[in-house]
Amino acid sequence: MVNLGLPVFGDAVRAQGAAAVDVDWRIPAGGHPELVAALERLYGPLSDRVEAGNREVVRRLDEGAPVLVGIAPAAQAVPGMGAGTILHCGPPLDWADFCDPLRRSVRASLLAEGWARSPEEAERLVATGRVRLEPANHHATVVPMATSLGPSAPVFVVENRQGGNRAYSGLNQGPGAAAWFGMDAPAAVERLVWLRDAAAPVLGAALAATGPVELFPLVAQGLQMGDDVHMRTQAATNLLIRHLLPQLVAVDSPRLVEVARFLSGNHLFFLNLAMAAAKAVADWAGLVPDSSVVTGMARNGTTFGIRLAGTGDAWFVAPAPPVGKALYYPGLGPDDSAPDIGDSAVLELVGLGGPAAAASPAVAAFLGGTMADAVASTEAVDRICAGRSGRFRLPLLDFRGTPIGVDVRRAVELEVTPSINTGILHASAGTGQVGAGIAQAPIDCFRQALLALDERLRR
Amino acid sequence: MVNLGLPVFGDAVRAQGAAAVDVDWRIPAGGHPELVAALERLYGPLSDRVEAGNREVVRRLDEGAPVLVGIAPAAQAVPGMGAGTILHCGPPLDWADFCDPLRRSVRASLLAEGWARSPEEAERLVATGRVRLEPANHHATVVPMATSLGPSAPVFVVENRQGGNRAYSGLNQGPGAAAWFGMDAPAAVERLVWLRDAAAPVLGAALAATGPVELFPLVAQGLQMGDDVHMRTQAATNLLIRHLLPQLVAVDSPRLVEVARFLSGNHLFFLNLAMAAAKAVADWAGLVPDSSVVTGMARNGTTFGIRLAGTGDAWFVAPAPPVGKALYYPGLGPDDSAPDIGDSAVLELVGLGGPAAAASPAVAAFLGGTMADAVASTEAVDRICAGRSGRFRLPLLDFRGTPIGVDVRRAVELEVTPSINTGILHASAGTGQVGAGIAQAPIDCFRQALLALDERLRR
Repeated sequence: MVNLGLPVFGDAVRAQGAAAVDVDWRIPAGGHPELVAALERLYGPLSDRVEAGNREVVRRLDEGAPVLVGIAPAAQAVPGMGAGTILHCGPPLDWADFCDPLRRSVRASLLAEGWARSPEEAERLVATGRVRLEPANHHATVVPMATSLGPSAPVFVVENRQGGNRAYSGLNQGPGAAAWFGMDAPAAVERLVWLRDAAAPVLGAALAATGPVELFPLVAQGLQMGDDVHMRTQAATNLLIRHLLPQLVAVDSPRLVEVARFLSGNHLFFLNLAMAAAKAVADWAGLVPDSSVVTGMARNGTTFGIRLAGTGDAWFVAPAPPVGKALYYPGLGPDDSAPDIGDSAVLELVGLGGPAAAASPAVAAFLGGTMADAVASTEAVDRICAGRSGRFRLPLLDFRGTPIGVDVRRAVELEVTPSINTGILHASAGTGQVGAGIAQAPIDCFRQALLALDERLRR
Repeated sequence: MVNLGLPVFGDAVRAQGAAAVDVDWRIPAGGHPELVAALERLYGPLSDRVEAGNREVVRRLDEGAPVLVGIAPAAQAVPGMGAGTILHCGPPLDWADFCDPLRRSVRASLLAEGWARSPEEAERLVATGRVRLEPANHHATVVPMATSLGPSAPVFVVENRQGGNRAYSGLNQGPGAAAWFGMDAPAAVERLVWLRDAAAPVLGAALAATGPVELFPLVAQGLQMGDDVHMRTQAATNLLIRHLLPQLVAVDSPRLVEVARFLSGNHLFFLNLAMAAAKAVADWAGLVPDSSVVTGMARNGTTFGIRLAGTGDAWFVAPAPPVGKALYYPGLGPDDSAPDIGDSAVLELVGLGGPAAAASPAVAAFLGGTMADAVASTEAVDRICAGRSGRFRLPLLDFRGTPIGVDVRRAVELEVTPSINTGILHASAGTGQVGAGIAQAPIDCFRQALLALDERLRR
């Protein structure tokens, strides 16, 4: 007997001594008539246009070669940021709906800017509407976890010469008491000031002397060295440090030793660079019409949103999911955890993080413990992707490329969404990170996006 | 039919349409009566003593925790070196039998010491016997490839506090024109002088400020990051750089930038440290009586030698094998290649290099290209080892420890010897490295060692 669907039927046959093979089959799109109808069009009469778009999106995701060109204050570098603006992670959101960690981070940014002298004063200033809150994603910028950026915050400037576009990210704020972990304690504010006044000038000088740094070769090598380049960026960070070393030691600054100590102790320093690089190619890919590939994915701790190349600037949002498969710091658990947060999910769109789980023993620890578990995670997202990377390779899969280009049609059809390797913040106490785990993108965003694409292509 | 031994018999049965299962079985020790008799005793009446020795050897190999404590001139640090001595790789050898790359390296050391002004003068000086040539291994020292060390050459000082012993290695000389690759060109000599006059003081100052560095945690992490910690030490090198960074940038020296550039461009910088660490634990293990485990393994390009814990200082030597499974630089091949050379095979005794092949995509390239090939290589040496590392873990084998403690009984019985991941030097032109590959330790050394152990334990 061949059993399609639930294994329980095959079990019943086997219990009677007969042979049965289970085939993993489910009703497409959960059987929702509206979704099935859209899928029939997008896989049917509309498929030539969609496939052509997807090919171009995959080409851009695979051929964009982002280069780190400098460090500058956000107001100076980030287009359209304007005075009095704070950039935040995730889709657009009313201040009233901001989660606790992101509220704290915004308050910390106001304090670092000198716009307020206490968290309370900062809170009032935002509540009165005198500070403009804008999604970083709307300004070619991505920020991890609960990061927010004020005008004086330093950003990495990353250029995608193939697309003629630029993308930006703040400097990674490091471990411990830091605003990106949803903290507004004085130490977190001091960290922001230190990044601006010490780290940015020293790193900027080293970078200016080194010249532009090609980022994806470091990423590709990081994948050969146990990074998924999301949850773990230790190898890529070390490769960058080694690359900058000759110019770094030559920087003439009394802050050099402090900056070296910070770099030496921050395994996630490369994270923000990888994100800016991913954003640069995703934004370029996002200009392609008709494509069913996801080119934006971000969370603000309240909502989870995606954007499709084929539907332009529209966000398709759902409540931010909890982070599952988590490992917590001692004494902390799910009850302490804020929902999934940050723009770092852009990495999962270019073949890093979840799609690269099979590269990383460290990530395997979250997925069941063995490399086979990590391979299974990569294989799951491979089923919903339109292509594979030509440069990000997985040793465990005979150096096959990581999956790139999440196709919303496949996600909805198979009811499989990307897994995102991510950190977890405290929901309310302002005490920072409580652990790390795997978030599952909510299927509802993909369903909305599918319907919107179908609607647009039928016009 | 169950077919023991050659598959050709099973093939014949299968050709006639019958079922046959091949069992990989060979006549133990190739059927040599003398070896079989020794094995019968060492696995039989003598086995309690041997097993007790082996347990202690494996414990020492697994529990020694070598620490880098400083950098000093060889004459000052290395015990019993004496004036006018040059240390060289491999077992003892008459100057007349030195291979071309090692001759060149020794001449380069004499030039760097200022004992001669030309390679010809250096050659004459050695030929007249006015320079004492000593195996580095006889002085608790190990050196990679064709390295030789004069009295002024800087060495890493590594301490194994568990055993109360120290081991030493020169600083890695880096890529390109360097004496460790069998070169005596002026640039190679200048490199030696530069290592002594620039690199050693700068690194020594950084290290003094950092304090002792535990080496095996860096090694263990390197294995999670694609290093086998022999052919590839890039991850461990980067981890060390990151560790030293805060103190390195603070070194007050006009040579700091040069040294940073050298570190930044030398993926094998950690190799010599790993070797000294391995030597420290292998020497400690080598003091255990009755053991059939190999605690010394080295090559001078002419002979390949091993030492057993149970047979003390004796070397068991055979002609140095060629390096197989090689990848060559363009235009070069087997005809250009010197035989296997260097003390780095000590790494294969402590679970690194060949036994750790399964950790390294880079090494897999030499073994057939897939990670399955690399796993097979690790599994092969696992069959002849007395234990597994408790700290060097292989993600691909569910974080099982790498094989440690090569048991000469198993090697001779199964006719399996360690594979050594190594570089290849030009045989005669003095042009340096021609490629890299895998050397197979000659079985004859293991047979001699087995007989000597049997002889000694029967006394």
